[in-house]
Amino acid sequence: MEKVFTYDTTLRDGAQSEGVSFSDSGKLRFTRMLDDFGIDYIEGGFAGSNPRDRKFFEDIRREKLSHSRIVAFGSTRRADMDAAADPQLAGLLAADTEYVTIYGKSWLLHVTDVLRTTAMNNLQMIADTVGHLKSQGRKIIFDAEHFYDGFKNNPEYALKALESAVREGACALVLCDTNGGTLPHESFEITSRVCHHFPDVEIGAHTHDDSGLGAAVALEAIRAGARHVQGTINGYGERTGNANLITIIPSVELKMGLFCVGSENLKKLHKVSVVADDLTNQRTDSRRPYVGRASFSHKAGAHVNAVRKNPATFEHIDPAAVGNQRRILVSELSGGTNVRMKAEELGVDLSTITKEQIGAVLAAVKNKENEGFSYESADGSFKILLHKILDQHKPFFELLGFRCIVEKRGPQEPCISEATIKVRVKGETELTAGEGEGPVDALNQALRKALVRFYPEIDTVSLTDYRVRILDPKSATRAVTRVLIESGDGQRTWGTVGVSENIIEASWQALLDSVEVKLIDVET
Amino acid sequence: MEKVFTYDTTLRDGAQSEGVSFSDSGKLRFTRMLDDFGIDYIEGGFAGSNPRDRKFFEDIRREKLSHSRIVAFGSTRRADMDAAADPQLAGLLAADTEYVTIYGKSWLLHVTDVLRTTAMNNLQMIADTVGHLKSQGRKIIFDAEHFYDGFKNNPEYALKALESAVREGACALVLCDTNGGTLPHESFEITSRVCHHFPDVEIGAHTHDDSGLGAAVALEAIRAGARHVQGTINGYGERTGNANLITIIPSVELKMGLFCVGSENLKKLHKVSVVADDLTNQRTDSRRPYVGRASFSHKAGAHVNAVRKNPATFEHIDPAAVGNQRRILVSELSGGTNVRMKAEELGVDLSTITKEQIGAVLAAVKNKENEGFSYESADGSFKILLHKILDQHKPFFELLGFRCIVEKRGPQEPCISEATIKVRVKGETELTAGEGEGPVDALNQALRKALVRFYPEIDTVSLTDYRVRILDPKSATRAVTRVLIESGDGQRTWGTVGVSENIIEASWQALLDSVEVKLIDVET
Repeated sequence: MEKVFTYDTTLRDGAQSEGVSFSDSGKLRFTRMLDDFGIDYIEGGFAGSNPRDRKFFEDIRREKLSHSRIVAFGSTRRADMDAAADPQLAGLLAADTEYVTIYGKSWLLHVTDVLRTTAMNNLQMIADTVGHLKSQGRKIIFDAEHFYDGFKNNPEYALKALESAVREGACALVLCDTNGGTLPHESFEITSRVCHHFPDVEIGAHTHDDSGLGAAVALEAIRAGARHVQGTINGYGERTGNANLITIIPSVELKMGLFCVGSENLKKLHKVSVVADDLTNQRTDSRRPYVGRASFSHKAGAHVNAVRKNPATFEHIDPAAVGNQRRILVSELSGGTNVRMKAEELGVDLSTITKEQIGAVLAAVKNKENEGFSYESADGSFKILLHKILDQHKPFFELLGFRCIVEKRGPQEPCISEATIKVRVKGETELTAGEGEGPVDALNQALRKALVRFYPEIDTVSLTDYRVRILDPKSATRAVTRVLIESGDGQRTWGTVGVSENIIEASWQALLDSVEVKLIDVET
Repeated sequence: MEKVFTYDTTLRDGAQSEGVSFSDSGKLRFTRMLDDFGIDYIEGGFAGSNPRDRKFFEDIRREKLSHSRIVAFGSTRRADMDAAADPQLAGLLAADTEYVTIYGKSWLLHVTDVLRTTAMNNLQMIADTVGHLKSQGRKIIFDAEHFYDGFKNNPEYALKALESAVREGACALVLCDTNGGTLPHESFEITSRVCHHFPDVEIGAHTHDDSGLGAAVALEAIRAGARHVQGTINGYGERTGNANLITIIPSVELKMGLFCVGSENLKKLHKVSVVADDLTNQRTDSRRPYVGRASFSHKAGAHVNAVRKNPATFEHIDPAAVGNQRRILVSELSGGTNVRMKAEELGVDLSTITKEQIGAVLAAVKNKENEGFSYESADGSFKILLHKILDQHKPFFELLGFRCIVEKRGPQEPCISEATIKVRVKGETELTAGEGEGPVDALNQALRKALVRFYPEIDTVSLTDYRVRILDPKSATRAVTRVLIESGDGQRTWGTVGVSENIIEASWQALLDSVEVKLIDVET
C-alpha cells in the first residue's frame, strides 16, 4: 500500500489556538504518544523565536523516539538581511533537528501588502533560506503559505515560489490553505497541477477548517497525488482550527486504500484523541467523527434492530478499527470483554468472576459516568471499583471528618490554607493538621501525616499531576467538577478521579483513591 | 443567480440527537426564525407516528409564514399492507401539509436484511406510497435512504428505486448518505449520474458528518447539479450529526455563485446559530465555521498587523457577511496594534494615549502572562488592566478580608461550605456570610450580599461559565491555577481571570474583576 506521511503541528499551530496550551511535561508526554501512534513528523514549535519552544527542543533531544522525526519550524529570512545573519534562522539551526520546516509567501498579495517587498526579492528570500539551511546539513520542508489563494490569483508566481525552494534542495513542498477558504474540488485541481509539475518531490497539504472543509480539502489533495498531510490532533488551531488528523487518518486508511499509521496503530486513535484533550485541558466533544462517544451510538428502535442484524446497515466503519465502540443504549452487556481486558492489565484476578459480576461492573461504570466520573485516565479508581464489586475491597482507614480553612486578611496579604483531618486507622484515632499552598494541598499534607505512622510506604507516593474539569460550566461556580490526580511512587504511576459540586470534595475523593491504590499494591 | 433550495430537518433528524430537545413553543419560535431567514422547506417531524410531532403540525397551521413550506415526514408503506390502509400514511396525510417527504430503501442490503422483503416488492412499496399521497393532492419529496451506499453496491437497483418514485409523480429526489461514509468525489460522480438520468427533476442531497465530511459531500453534490440541500442548524443529529446548514449555506452563496437565502438574510446566520443553541440548550462552540466567536479572531502580532493592512490576508470572507465580527486577541505575542484595536472594541478612550503607555500595557500583559494570566478570553480583566495603566482606575470597594470553611463530618456526610467577607464600601464596613455548593460559590454569595446595598445593579450580574486550568500540573496540588469566569447581565457577557497557587484566591480575583467590570460600565 502506498504511504501518506503524517505531519503533526499540534505543538505549534495547534498551540496558537485560543485556550489550548501545554505544560512542558505535557509536550513530552504528547510527543511520546504520537511517536507510539506512528506519526511521521512532529513539529515542536517556533525554534527561532520562542524561548519556551526552544526548551522543548532541548528536552526532546534526551528522549529516545522509535519512529517520529522532530521538526523545528521557522520562516524565510528577513527581507533586508542575509540568511546567515538572521537571528531567527540561527535559532532554528540551534534546535539541532534533522528536519526543519520553513514557511514562505506564494501569494503576491502577501508579498506586496504584508512583506512590502518585491515579487523577485520574495523568491530570493525563499531560495537563500533553503540554501542556507541545506548548507548546514538540514532536510528542508517548504510550507508555501496561502498557496491555494496564491495559485488562484497567479499560478505562475505560486509555482515559482515552489521552484525556488526545490532548486535549493527542499525535500518536500507543502501547499497551505492558510485562510481555510478553499473548496475541495479546487484543492484537487490545483494539487494535481503541482504534482505534475514536480513529479519527484514529496507534495503535502496543510489545511484549515474555516469553511468546515479542512479534512475534505486535505483528502482531495491526497487523491490528486499529495503524499504528506499536515494537521493537528482534534483539529486544535487558530480561529476554527487546523485540519483534524484524527478525522483524516482513518478516512485515508479505511476508505482510500492508502497507508498512514497502519491498522494496528489505528486502533489507538480514540485514546490519542482523548489523552490530547486531557493534556491541553480541552473539552472532549462526544460527537467527533470516528472517536466521539456518540459516533457509533444507536438509539432503541429500527436502527438498533438493523445494526443487530448487520452492523454495516448503520455504521460506515467498524468502530473497533479506530478503538471506539458501539453504544446501544438498551444493552449494557456489550462491554464485558473490555472489563476483562482492563482487569487483567490491572492485575485483578478474574478467574472466579461470574457473568453477573461483569454485568454489575458495567452497570456501576455506567452509573458513575452518568454522575460525571471518567475512568479513561483513572485506572486506579477503576481498580478500586472492581475490588468493591468483587468483594475484594477492604478499607485501610476510616474518615471521621475534615475541615479546611482558607483565609485572607487584607488585599495584599497572601491566602493561608489549613486543614485538619480525623481518621481511624487500625483501631486508633488520629487527628492531624496540615498547611499548604491551597486547600487541597493542605488536605493532602494532613492526610499523609495521619497515615504515615501506620503505612510508612505512602511516604514514597507523590502527586505528579492534578487536573480540574468543570463539567457543566453554564452553572458556573455551582457546576459539577471532575478532579483527576496522577500519583507515582518512583516505579509506577496511577490515575484517580473524584466528582462533586464541591471542588474540595472532588479532590478529596481522588486523594483517597490515590492512597488506597498504593496500599492495595503493598498488600498484594 | 441559480437557486439551491434549502431544506431544514432540525425538528426531525436533529431532534433525534442525544441531548437535543425542543419545547413545543421552542419549535414554533424556531420555525418562525427559519422562515424569516429564508429556509425553503422546514420538516416538522414524523407526522404519522409521533404524537408530539403531530401537535406541532396542528400548532403551525395557525401561524402565518412568509416564505417557508412546512413538510411532514414519513416512510413508505409497510411491506405487507395497502398504502391506503397503512395508519402511518393516514397520520402523514392528517398533518395537512402541501408537501410530504417519504423515505424508502434504495440499498439492497437494507431491503433483504432489514425489511426482509424482495427487491421487487420494495420498488412497489415506493410506487404505491407516492401514488397514494399524490392522489390525495400532496407534493412528494422522495428521500432515498442510503442512496450512495446503494448505488456503489448496485447502481441499476438504486436508480430503479428513484424511477419508481418519479413515475408516480414525486417532485424531488433526495440522495441520502445516511451512514455518513461517502467521500466528496464519490458524491460528485454519483450525483452527476443521477442528474443526467433525471434532467427534469429537482435532485437533493441529505448527508451526515460521520467522516467529518458532511458539508463537503453536500457541496460536491451541488456542484454535480443538485439544487436542493438538506441539513440541520448547527449540525445537530444522531451520532456525529447531520450536515450543518450553517456551514453549507454561506459556502454555496459566497464561494459557488449560487443563491440560497440571499445576502441580506445571510447576515442573520450568526444569530440563527446562537438562538438555535439557546432553544435546544446546547453549548455554543466558539470554533464553529463562519459563526463561532473565534472564527475571525487573530492573535499573533504578524497576523493582526496583516489584517489591519488588508483583511483578505487572513480572512477567507468578510465576517459581516454572515453577521459575525473580527476579534483581536491580546497576548504576549501581540504588538501595539492589537492593544489599540482591542481597546477600541472595549470602548476605552485611547485618544490621548502615549506611545509609552502602549509600551507599558504590552509590558504589563507580558508580565501577567508570565505569571499565568491569559487575557484572550478575559477582556473584562484586560479592560481593568488598561484603566489602571491609563490612571483611569478607581476602586469601588476595599477588601478587608475573607475566610472560607469547607467541612466534612463523616464519610457519608456532604461537604458544607461557608464564607465570610469583610469589605469597606463608600466609607462603611460590611461583614457578610454566604454558603454555597463549594467554597467559591460561598464566597460569591457573600460578596454579592456585601455590595448589593451600595451597588444594586450587581443584582443583574450572574456567572455563566467557570473554568479552571492547572498551569504546571506536575506540581500537582501546589500548582499554579488559572480561573476564568464569564459573567453576563442579560445584555452583554464579559470574561475575567485570576491566577494563584491557591484556587480560592485565583477564583476570588476573577470574581472581583467580574463585579468591577459591571461597575465601570454603570459609571460610564
